Order: sequence, then structure tokens, then C-alpha cells
Amino acid sequence: MPIDPTHPKSFASDNHAGVHSEILHAITTANQGDAPAYGDDTWTSTFEHKIKETFGPTAEGFAVLNGAGANMVGLALMLGRYDAILCADSAHIATHETGATERLLGVKLRTVPTSQGKLRPDDIKAHLNLLGQHHEPQPAVVSISQVTELGTCYSPTEIAALAETAHASGLRLHVDGARLANAAAHLNCPLKAITTDAGVDVFSFGGTKNGALAAEAVVVLDPSLTDAVPYLRRQSLQLASKMRFISAQLSALLTDDLWHRNASHANQMALRLANGITDVPGVSLAQPVESNAVFATLPHAVTESLRQHYLFHYWDEQAGTVRWMTAYDTTEEHVDDFLAALHKAATT
Amino acid sequence: MPIDPTHPKSFASDNHAGVHSEILHAITTANQGDAPAYGDDTWTSTFEHKIKETFGPTAEGFAVLNGAGANMVGLALMLGRYDAILCADSAHIATHETGATERLLGVKLRTVPTSQGKLRPDDIKAHLNLLGQHHEPQPAVVSISQVTELGTCYSPTEIAALAETAHASGLRLHVDGARLANAAAHLNCPLKAITTDAGVDVFSFGGTKNGALAAEAVVVLDPSLTDAVPYLRRQSLQLASKMRFISAQLSALLTDDLWHRNASHANQMALRLANGITDVPGVSLAQPVESNAVFATLPHAVTESLRQHYLFHYWDEQAGTVRWMTAYDTTEEHVDDFLAALHKAATT
Amino acid sequence: MPIDPTHPKSFASDNHAGVHSEILHAITTANQGDAPAYGDDTWTSTFEHKIKETFGPTAEGFAVLNGAGANMVGLALMLGRYDAILCADSAHIATHETGATERLLGVKLRTVPTSQGKLRPDDIKAHLNLLGQHHEPQPAVVSISQVTELGTCYSPTEIAALAETAHASGLRLHVDGARLANAAAHLNCPLKAITTDAGVDVFSFGGTKNGALAAEAVVVLDPSLTDAVPYLRRQSLQLASKMRFISAQLSALLTDDLWHRNASHANQMALRLANGITDVPGVSLAQPVESNAVFATLPHAVTESLRQHYLFHYWDEQAGTVRWMTAYDTTEEHVDDFLAALHKAATT
Amino acid sequence: MPIDPTHPKSFASDNHAGVHSEILHAITTANQGDAPAYGDDTWTSTFEHKIKETFGPTAEGFAVLNGAGANMVGLALMLGRYDAILCADSAHIATHETGATERLLGVKLRTVPTSQGKLRPDDIKAHLNLLGQHHEPQPAVVSISQVTELGTCYSPTEIAALAETAHASGLRLHVDGARLANAAAHLNCPLKAITTDAGVDVFSFGGTKNGALAAEAVVVLDPSLTDAVPYLRRQSLQLASKMRFISAQLSALLTDDLWHRNASHANQMALRLANGITDVPGVSLAQPVESNAVFATLPHAVTESLRQHYLFHYWDEQAGTVRWMTAYDTTEEHVDDFLAALHKAATT
Repeated sequence: MPIDPTHPKSFASDNHAGVHSEILHAITTANQGDAPAYGDDTWTSTFEHKIKETFGPTAEGFAVLNGAGANMVGLALMLGRYDAILCADSAHIATHETGATERLLGVKLRTVPTSQGKLRPDDIKAHLNLLGQHHEPQPAVVSISQVTELGTCYSPTEIAALAETAHASGLRLHVDGARLANAAAHLNCPLKAITTDAGVDVFSFGGTKNGALAAEAVVVLDPSLTDAVPYLRRQSLQLASKMRFISAQLSALLTDDLWHRNASHANQMALRLANGITDVPGVSLAQPVESNAVFATLPHAVTESLRQHYLFHYWDEQAGTVRWMTAYDTTEEHVDDFLAALHKAATT
Repeated sequence: MPIDPTHPKSFASDNHAGVHSEILHAITTANQGDAPAYGDDTWTSTFEHKIKETFGPTAEGFAVLNGAGANMVGLALMLGRYDAILCADSAHIATHETGATERLLGVKLRTVPTSQGKLRPDDIKAHLNLLGQHHEPQPAVVSISQVTELGTCYSPTEIAALAETAHASGLRLHVDGARLANAAAHLNCPLKAITTDAGVDVFSFGGTKNGALAAEAVVVLDPSLTDAVPYLRRQSLQLASKMRFISAQLSALLTDDLWHRNASHANQMALRLANGITDVPGVSLAQPVESNAVFATLPHAVTESLRQHYLFHYWDEQAGTVRWMTAYDTTEEHVDDFLAALHKAATT
Repeated sequence: MPIDPTHPKSFASDNHAGVHSEILHAITTANQGDAPAYGDDTWTSTFEHKIKETFGPTAEGFAVLNGAGANMVGLALMLGRYDAILCADSAHIATHETGATERLLGVKLRTVPTSQGKLRPDDIKAHLNLLGQHHEPQPAVVSISQVTELGTCYSPTEIAALAETAHASGLRLHVDGARLANAAAHLNCPLKAITTDAGVDVFSFGGTKNGALAAEAVVVLDPSLTDAVPYLRRQSLQLASKMRFISAQLSALLTDDLWHRNASHANQMALRLANGITDVPGVSLAQPVESNAVFATLPHAVTESLRQHYLFHYWDEQAGTVRWMTAYDTTEEHVDDFLAALHKAATT
Repeated sequence: MPIDPTHPKSFASDNHAGVHSEILHAITTANQGDAPAYGDDTWTSTFEHKIKETFGPTAEGFAVLNGAGANMVGLALMLGRYDAILCADSAHIATHETGATERLLGVKLRTVPTSQGKLRPDDIKAHLNLLGQHHEPQPAVVSISQVTELGTCYSPTEIAALAETAHASGLRLHVDGARLANAAAHLNCPLKAITTDAGVDVFSFGGTKNGALAAEAVVVLDPSLTDAVPYLRRQSLQLASKMRFISAQLSALLTDDLWHRNASHANQMALRLANGITDVPGVSLAQPVESNAVFATLPHAVTESLRQHYLFHYWDEQAGTVRWMTAYDTTEEHVDDFLAALHKAATT
């Protein structure tokens, strides 16, 4: 369903937005003469330096091509042949990756039903009895999404508690940070506070949903895991030959706080949207709004009417819950137009 | 080893070149407003249409992120759990992919020593006795590289003979076409002549080495295999969320014969280079020059001297063989400067 | 924890029993002179013939080494690279195989919470919306356990309904029949009635838990799947070189209804045990007794007291549920002694 | 092709022989009452103790079901996600396992053409330049077969040299010891001399070809690898539930030097056969006879004539090379009858 120029702003996904001008400019600027392939270039050095600036001197950043790739490379670092991952049952690695986790990593996902998409230390503890049982894949990695798939955020303290519980039993903590920027913006804290400082071992730092063309980073905080990344990135089909153009995108996001400007703006637009529905009859929030996602419950007829003009998805069709996403380029006018349409649909 | 602005043109890889201006322009142009993610956009429709124009109405094109990914997705389509791939021992899928073929596809590579990197029908026939033997992985796919890893090209007739031999025993023919454009330019034939018309089942069509930022296509000619591609592409971490920007690159290559202009120019620069070495003492061609690669044998001292200023790789260090690659943006002046340096090094 | 000769009968597992005398005799009898390896022997021909006698002329039997192997080979026949298995969350393939399903098959398990371990047609239907969604592994196989992990049995009608629902959407039905004999004995029907006649595509037929040393069969009812078995069995490490000794065990089970005599006896001992607890204070059945398993709930103190003399496992320690298994060689005296000990423990 | 009672002794495989009487007796003796499943039994304790007696106190033995399984479990212990195995191109793990190495382990096999099936330290050194190259799977394990697939043996010194070279670069040494007993018997040395004392890290110790029904051991000499075995054995479908019967077979082989008696006898029969062909016109040895295998080259017409009565295989049909195997139960009369038939065929 291509979008024609007259189509209103999509609320279906932050992936529907294009490339932010500063990132496109960085790509264009990187297009000067030759550069060695596979990362042995100055743009990649700059990116690696900016990762250390942002996440601390122990952080090692590796640019990859998409979010699924960032997760698979990051997880592969920490998983042996008979290991298991603990994660929320809504985790992206457990749901919409066409089984990549099982096929590429060969491990079992032990999924936990959660409230608001967030794993708790007790969820880890409930699986620790599996350790040492030879008939059971061994829990080795706890993987959380920050922002969660339900748009909520873990506080730095919550992440630290998960890390502590995991580490106490020899497990590692992984963060799927496809929207890590939105979480830091919401929490009003540095990116470092919800990763390095909280005891995370490996995480992905998403760029694409935050204005890049196609660029994500795997960031490794446990130095014992670093050496394996180049091999696993190559084997996992995530190594760009003309790497400079991937690195340049990530560097642009880390320049002049573009990551924060974009994420913060998208979050504000989500809040504006959430605030705007409070007085719409029959419409209610299904989750707290802590990022650029608004989960709302509304009558099916209203949804159907609205979808005649607007792109967005059901989250749970039976329950009437929908997900509305904002992006770095969503404007107040976009939101207000959408709210107007919603009002109209709900009151007709 | 970053390249500074004063560094001379790299002869190490066609991946060292940047993005062709027409492709960068296509990316920029595609950056207008929203577009659905994952390929449901007009740029992707255009790309799919251009694939059919180029390779015939049965051809279905799928954009992916890099060459290794294109090969893995394409091969996965044709390989079951106990199958084997026959290929030249120089094949990229058998050498420099950090074992991706074995890990991601789970199949055995049966490699054949070759002359000039080219597989022959007799190489297939020599493995047919394995069919039906339960202790042996079953030959299911013949994979060739066009251009080969040694810079040579299969003629349309040679490919057709391989296809015929493969099909006669129920095997399929795959082409790693990372430099398919260079082959067609050298052979002075349409891309269709060395793919669709020659009986190929699945091939990759490379963009990155021919001027793209990061864009390759998996092209499926056997309609029974098409349905599986979206699943395998997603699972293999090769699906771009902002697909329009990948599709736009490939469409640009297929517009106004950019693929041919770029490849043809690079090939001509390789020929100019090859012609220029005929009178250099101690330097000789190691392979016929049929693409944008020049394989030459020269004294190690000359190589070392030349490498102080120029980037290029040994192919076989012991034999003194090196590989010089040209690109779409290699100029006559680049070649002539290189030849002058070679002359100087060889005669000092 | 080795069992000394004075230890009472184990109620922990039907795997604790030894080899039935008729099966041991069959092994001894097969030990005459040479026989070709890998199944090209008369004992294997006999086994294959007996499978057809038992399950019908379309049934093809393949002897393997253990139950996990039988399941993996059988499932591998029906699963492509991006497929998923639907099964009960108690299914053995989803729980205690150290992740073999994920690693060896590379597929996702979609597990369903069940009542009494039994999957229903509606459980299948609830997943059919995944078909055709490229981000989701595709449901391809429904796998049920007969007897279930909770000791219950599907009726022939229930299996037929699952087969019909599965087939209507292009899925196949697999049965983990580690205790298929116990099910047929309980249901008082031929083995054929709960497999071939019910529309099952592939199943395993367990021997080890029913008196064999180590012998299970993969039985294929869909002729289009047969050719692949020898390759998958070999690759899955399930091919015995001295196959005659595996085949002879399975043939012995299929001779003079030994399978039925053993299973029927074990079932009767479970019923005797179940009947004997009705008047024990604080002890109650947790599941209907439909095989050689008795699931009971009892006070932890009683369990602990009883376990000082008897081997058996908690099923759900928190709930106080235990699993008592009988075997072909459990005697009435064994049961009565156990019941006496239980009475004593419960009333002290 | 079943063997009828009147068929002469097979020279095709040591797998064609039945079970040695002492081993069958051990199985029968183990069949007394209950025993815990999965190895928690006294027979398994005895087996583990005998492994330590034979191979030294650091040796940990794990019983498995077949030779392919023993190799896969042993190798999996030492291989990460992007590793490679170096082995002879004749190695069983590289040839007749239906691709199990690639699919189950997911690693690349780097095979080396060899003289007499034996790898040399220089073969390892030739691959060490791959270490640290991110595009290449990393050599991690050197795997040799003792006896080799060509019937030859490594001396203790040769193995120690391989171990030293491997260890010096961080690689480990694995031995496929399907016929380890025959090697020790030929070399007239303890089993320990060609394993523990030679620096081997992990090896398999074959039982089935030496008189067992179905029993092999994975023996781990590097204590850091031991903990992983139970998980990998279970996941690799190599765990017998009624383990006592597997352990009893291996213990029987290690009792009263049965392993040596059987292997030594088989070796002597091979020597008798080899000695007997020296004066047969047109027949010559193709390999030195150092075990229970005789590789000979003879005219195709002689081979075909002989195969009308005797079972044996071509090794290299084009070259006219055949493989004749003896077993623990091959008698002098069997050999002499075979030689008489050979003489007759060769001189008719």
C-alpha cells in the first residue's frame, strides 16, 4: 500500500519516516573518494570514538545493518550450544523475526508473560532452578527491550536490579535498544545511565527508527566478548563492505545530540497524542505513554473509520487495542489532524 | 588504514569506491515523506518492475543488504537439510564468509579445484554418483560465480551447459553475481543472456561493487521458489525496514543502463592496466582479463615497493600473484599513474 | 543414586525397568554370524514387515536409537527453514530435550497451555492467522504426545479432529508415541486406530519404555516423506551400524502382541495404584489415570517420608504433585507394598 | 542384501560381525531389576572407573550410542560459532556422515589431502595464517582418525607432535578412535600412550566395531571441557535412557583386556590376509597393513569374480582399489578360504 504525497502522516511505525537531513548530509559528506572496506576507515574510527564518549571507555561499538541483525550478533556473543534466553513474551526476538533466534542462534527462548512488557528480577529467579539440569537448556542471557514492545521504559534502577540478579547467577544482561534513544529521552538521563552504569553486558543502539537510513550498533561493555564480534558480524551477514556510510549515520546521530533531539521530539508528539484522547468518548490508554508509542483501546468501528485515512496497526484486534507510533518528523499539526479525525470518528 | 585525501586511487577493491552520483541522487530523491516499511512502497514496486524488464517476466527480484546475504538467501531457497552445494574451490561462498554457508545453511560445500575459477559440466557429473547414497549429503545446487573470483567470465553457452547438466539430474544452478554487470559488459550481452536465457534458477545481482551504497538483489527465475523468499530474507537478517532506500539504489542502476556504464568503464580501466604491463620487465598476467580485475605475477620486491603508495592485495603471496581491481570511478589518469609507478618500481 | 538389590521397585520411571525377557532373547537370537550393517539385513526386513502389518501397507518403519531421536527425525521430515511446531506446553519436545528441537531443527516451538496435556483443534485454529505473515515462522506441524506428558490419552476421534484441522490448512500431524502402546492398551483399540486411521502423518513408536533395551521407531504414513528418512536418520546420529539388534527388539515387541501385554500390564498396575489411594487421607489424583502414570497430590511431609524408601519425582513441587510410573515388570506386590508405605506415611 | 547362513564371512566391514559373547553376557547380567535411568547407575560408575584406570585419573568417560555421535559430541565441546576443523580429506567426519558435521556443529571442515590418511604438523602450520582473519572461520580443532580411514596408524610420537603444534597456537587435538583399540594393538602400546600421554584433548573410543552391540565412549582429557558433556550428549540425541546396558558393554571391553584380544586378533587376521596375497598375480597392497584393514589393488575382473561370493567394497573403483576388513570373529579358516577364492579368481 504505497503512500501517495497527499496521504496524511503515518502513525503505523517510526520506520515509515524517511532519513533525517543531518544523517543524509553525513552520508553525502562521506562520499568523497576512496575508503577501505569493512570498517578500516576514518568514519568508522569516529563512530567508535563517539560510542566511547557516549557509553564510557569500556564500550566498543560495532555498526550493523538492521535491528534484527544487531540483536542476533549481540546475543550470539553470549550464548553457547545448550543455552537459553529469558525474555518477555512480547520481546521482539521472540515474536516477529521469522524464527531467526531459533535458527541462527539455535537456542531456546524461555518467554515470560509480563505486565507492561517488563521483566522483573523474580522472573529471572523463577528460572534459576534449571541451572545444572542436563535435560534443560541453561539460562545464560536475560534479554530486555528498552523501550519495551509496549512502549514502556525500565528505570535505571530496574535495569540495575536485573543485571545484579542475572550476574549473581552467572547470566548476562542484553538490551534490545532499537528505541534506546526514546527511553533515555523519556527518562531524562544519559544513554550511559541505562546501559553502562546499570550493568548491561551487551546492547543494541538503534538508529533506523530514530532517523537513520539503515544503521544500528552492537555495543559491547564486557571486554571479554569484544574479540568475537567481527567474526560473528561477518558470519551473520551484518558487515557492510562500504562501512563508512553506516558509520557516518551513527556518528551523525551522536553529533550535537541528534539522537536526543529526534527521540525527544517523537516522545513529545506521543504525549501530545495521548493527552488529546483523554476527552474522546470510548477511547482510553492501554499502556502508560513513556516513549513514542501510544497504545489505546477504542471501539472497532472507530478504528475502522480512522484507518480509512490513517496508517496504523492493531496490537490486539480482539481487545480493540491499537498502537500509534510517532517519529522524529511527526509534527504538532500531524497529531492535531489525527486527533481531529479521531474525535470525528468517535462522535459520529 | 584510513585513506587520506592525498592517497592515490585504491586498486585493492571495487568496494573502496564511494557511491555513484546517480545512485546517491536516487537515495536523496526517495527521501520524501513517509513510505510503508519492508518493501510495501512505490520505489520497491519500481525496482521489481525493472527486474522484470531486465531479466524477463518470470524474474522476481528481492532487495537485500549485502552480497553474502544475497547468496545465503538465494541458496537457502534451494537447499534441504541433507543437501550439498557443488562449487569451485575459489568460490566466495566457500572461502571468505566466516563459515556462513555451513552455519546458516547447514550444508556441505563440495569444492572442486578449477582452472580459471570456472566449473565445468564434468565437475558436476563427477559428483552424481553421490545421489541416492544415504551416508552422503546430496548434491542439490551448483553454484558458480559470474564474474569468477579469478576475474574470468563464463560464456552464455558455458552457463547453459552447466544448467542443462544440473537440471538433467535434478540439481539447480545458482549464480553469485556480485559482479554480474561486469560479466555482461565484458561479454557484450544483455544481463538476461547469462541468467534467464541460460537456464539459471536463482542468482544474485550485485549493486555495491558497481556504485551502490549497499544494495544487492536476489533474483528468482524458478517460480516455485518465489514464495519462500520473504520469509528467508527476514530470517536471514537481510530485510531493510526502510526498504525504499535499497530499492531506489537498485532501480538507479537499472535506469539508463547505469549498471552497464559503470561496469563497462571499470572493465576498460582493467584492460588499460593489463595492456600497460606487457612491457614491464618481470611482470606478467596470471589470468585472462575479462572483467575489472587484473591478476598479475611480479617480483615481491616490486610489489612491496608499489604497496608503499598503492593499496592492493596479494592473491597468492607465495607465487607472487596480486589482484588489482578497478572501479566505476577509476580514471585513465589513475591507471596511468599506477603504471608509471609500476614501471619505476620494476626497473629500479 | 544406584539402586541396590534390596531397594524396592522404582515408581520414578518406566525407564528404570530392565529388558523384557522376550526382547533380550530376540537380541541373543539375532547374534548369529554376520549381517550387513545399517539395516540391509533380514531382522530389519522383518521389522519393516511387522510395521506394515500393524499400521497398514502405507506405513514405513525406521528403527532409531532413542525417543528424542525418533522425534527429531520424524519432525525434521516435515519442517522447512522458517516453520514452527504447535504443541502443548508440556510436550517433551518443548521441555526436557536440552533445546534439541531448536538447535537441531532450527524451528520455533509455539506452545499452548493445555488442560490435561491435550491439544484441541481450536488451539490450531488460533495460530492459523500466522500463515502468510512474513515476519512469523509458519506453523507447519502440530505435534501431540500420545500418551500425553500428563498420562492422559487422546481418543481416536480427538486425533482425527486434530488431523483434519491441521490438514485443512496444510499443516501436518505428528505424534510423539513414546508410550503409544500404553495409549492403545488403555483405549482398547489397535495401534492403527490412533495413527493411520486417525490421519496422523508421522509418529514415533516407543519401545524402550515398554521393555526394550534401546529401540524406537519412526513411522511414516505420508509416502511423500519416506525417501528423506534414511538421510535424516543418518545425519541425526540415529543410525545403528549393527541395526539387526535394534530391529530385533522392535520385532519382538510386535510379536505375539508383546507391546500390548507389557503396556496393558503396566496400565493395570497404575490403575491398581490409583484405586489404592482413594482412601488415603490427604492424597488425591491430579489427573485421570489413562496409562501407566499416576499423578497425585499429597502433603509434602508424606512425599518426603515416602521418598526415603521409594524412587519417584515431583511433577510440580510447589503444588505437591508427584508422578508415579509403573512398568511392564511392576507387580501387584510392588504396588501393594507401595500403597502400604503410603498409607503408613500419610497416617503417621 | 541379507546374508544367509551359508554365506561366507564378510570382509566388507567390522560392523558385519555380531556381538562378542563376553559383551552379550555383560548385557544379560546387567538385566537385573531396576536401575536409575540416564547413567545414575552402578554399571555406569564401573565404566567411568575403568576409563580412569585405562586412560589416567584425568580422563572422564561418557557412553554414547554410535561413532558419529561420539565424534559430534566430542567435537562440539571444542567448537565455537565461527570455528573450523582441520582434518584429512579422508576423515570420516568429512565424508560419510550425511553432512552431520556441517549441520549439527555448524562449522567448516578444512580438509587436507594426505598420504596414507595421516595429518602432519606442517598441515596444521599451513592454516595458522587464518587465525585472526575476520572473514575466515578460525581453526580451533585438529581432528585425526586413529586408525586412519586408510588403515594406517599414527605413532605416539606423531600424535604428540600434532598435539604440540596444535596447542602452541591455541588449537585442540581430537581423535576419532572408532578403531583406537586396533591402533594400540598394532602399536603394541597401552591405549593411554596414544591418547593421554600424547596430549590429546578429546577422543572417541569405539566399541561397536570391536565386538559391542552399540556402544562408544567420548573421553575428555581436558578437565575444562567436562561439564559440558552431559548437556551436549543429551542435545545431540546420544543419551540412552537405559544407560546401564551401554555402560556394561564398554566395561566388558575394558575387562580382562577384551578390547585388546579382539583388536589384536582382527589385526592378525588382516596381516594373514595381506601376507597371503603377495604371490597372487596382479594383486598388490595399496596401503601398509597396520590394523584390521587391507587395502589392495587388483584387476576389476578379479574383484567382480570374488564379489560373487564375498561381501567387500571398492575403495576407489577407478583405481581398482578395494578394502578388506577383518573382525574379532574372523577366523584363520575364513581368511584362508578367502585367499583360495582370490587365487582362483586371479589365475582363471
